[in-house]
Amino acid sequence: MQKLVLIRHGESIWNQENRFTGWTDVDLSPEGVEQAKRAGQLLLKHGYNFDEGFTSLLKRSIKTLHILLEELDHLWIPVQKSWRLNERFYGALQGLNKDETIAQYGAEQVQKWRRDPNEFPPAITKEDPRYPGHDIRYKNLTERELPLTENLSVTMDRVLPFWNESIVDAIRKNQKVIVCGHGNSLRALIKYIDHLNDEEVTQLDLPTGVPMVYELDEGLNRIRHYYL
Amino acid sequence: MQKLVLIRHGESIWNQENRFTGWTDVDLSPEGVEQAKRAGQLLLKHGYNFDEGFTSLLKRSIKTLHILLEELDHLWIPVQKSWRLNERFYGALQGLNKDETIAQYGAEQVQKWRRDPNEFPPAITKEDPRYPGHDIRYKNLTERELPLTENLSVTMDRVLPFWNESIVDAIRKNQKVIVCGHGNSLRALIKYIDHLNDEEVTQLDLPTGVPMVYELDEGLNRIRHYYL
Repeated sequence: MQKLVLIRHGESIWNQENRFTGWTDVDLSPEGVEQAKRAGQLLLKHGYNFDEGFTSLLKRSIKTLHILLEELDHLWIPVQKSWRLNERFYGALQGLNKDETIAQYGAEQVQKWRRDPNEFPPAITKEDPRYPGHDIRYKNLTERELPLTENLSVTMDRVLPFWNESIVDAIRKNQKVIVCGHGNSLRALIKYIDHLNDEEVTQLDLPTGVPMVYELDEGLNRIRHYYL
Repeated sequence: MQKLVLIRHGESIWNQENRFTGWTDVDLSPEGVEQAKRAGQLLLKHGYNFDEGFTSLLKRSIKTLHILLEELDHLWIPVQKSWRLNERFYGALQGLNKDETIAQYGAEQVQKWRRDPNEFPPAITKEDPRYPGHDIRYKNLTERELPLTENLSVTMDRVLPFWNESIVDAIRKNQKVIVCGHGNSLRALIKYIDHLNDEEVTQLDLPTGVPMVYELDEGLNRIRHYYL
């Protein structure tokens, strides 16, 4: 049996302001920093330690992992960062307040954009300052990889190669792994690991900063999972 | 021309307490945290950014690099950590106060231990709690690699493979590189890059938390170097 720990980053400033974030590189809120510390202390209390960490290219995730590893006195483990673990790219919704968006488009449409795995938010154009092609951290991505909008299925399609190549590789080498990601990149991962259908993943909503433990069998199928 | 930035970690609690640290995993002092922030702000002001960072397995270095990268808004770059960039292993001196050691052994002997590249501090035994073989972060090191004491030449011997394989590799790929290390692992590296003789390296003392820029030619020979 292998244990894998998944954790969504601590609360960000835009979580607090109730705005769509996506790939916007928003910092943790002071409460988010505290959540990351508490997550580390909780993992420590339960005797967890890790051989390798994985996270996105976004600071709210990277800092959550760093803070948590510092609490565990495990800052020294290797950490791989990948754009493939980034939050879902929220297209033209990025930066908008969720309540204002509901007022404009209606609650039903916004709920679809947020939870329906097949629903695309309105796309941005390549001229939009929010286009990731303008950001040097994505300079090695192909034009095809640079998103204009994503639904959860598309997010899953780009998360899975990193899961299958890098994370699974570490687990198969008996490395104890922690993945610090985002609401939707983790939903995509969990949909895959747990074989959830579209209806089931619609219901799935992850709290910020709470470690979730997956116990996996040899074939990396879930035996059970629970929040710490 | 390629620029390489070397930086010694910010002041640690044991720098402040004037104790021999070596591989002891001592945290930054509040002043050390400030030094790391100032180093990041200075690099930002001078327009520096990086594609890749390298550091040791010791938190005073790792945190200095993280803090500095956060100031540069570059937390997302890959960071490689290696025991080969650790501080010189100070043997049985680790933990001792430098003034008390001078009182016991004399200033001349202590100065030799600190600066003479051929002088070994007294060795520890494998039963000593300070032996790195007891620390899981070094579990993949061979018994031969686990130090009981080191002089600067021995430190240089284990720093250089990492320099030649990982760091030089990144520089040759035109990556902008920052190395955050320790007083003696950086002295070892500088002795090599600058072709310093034993007398010259004896004089070399690096301040904490100040970025040092190396401009290198195609053959990775120094053109010039300066503190920011």
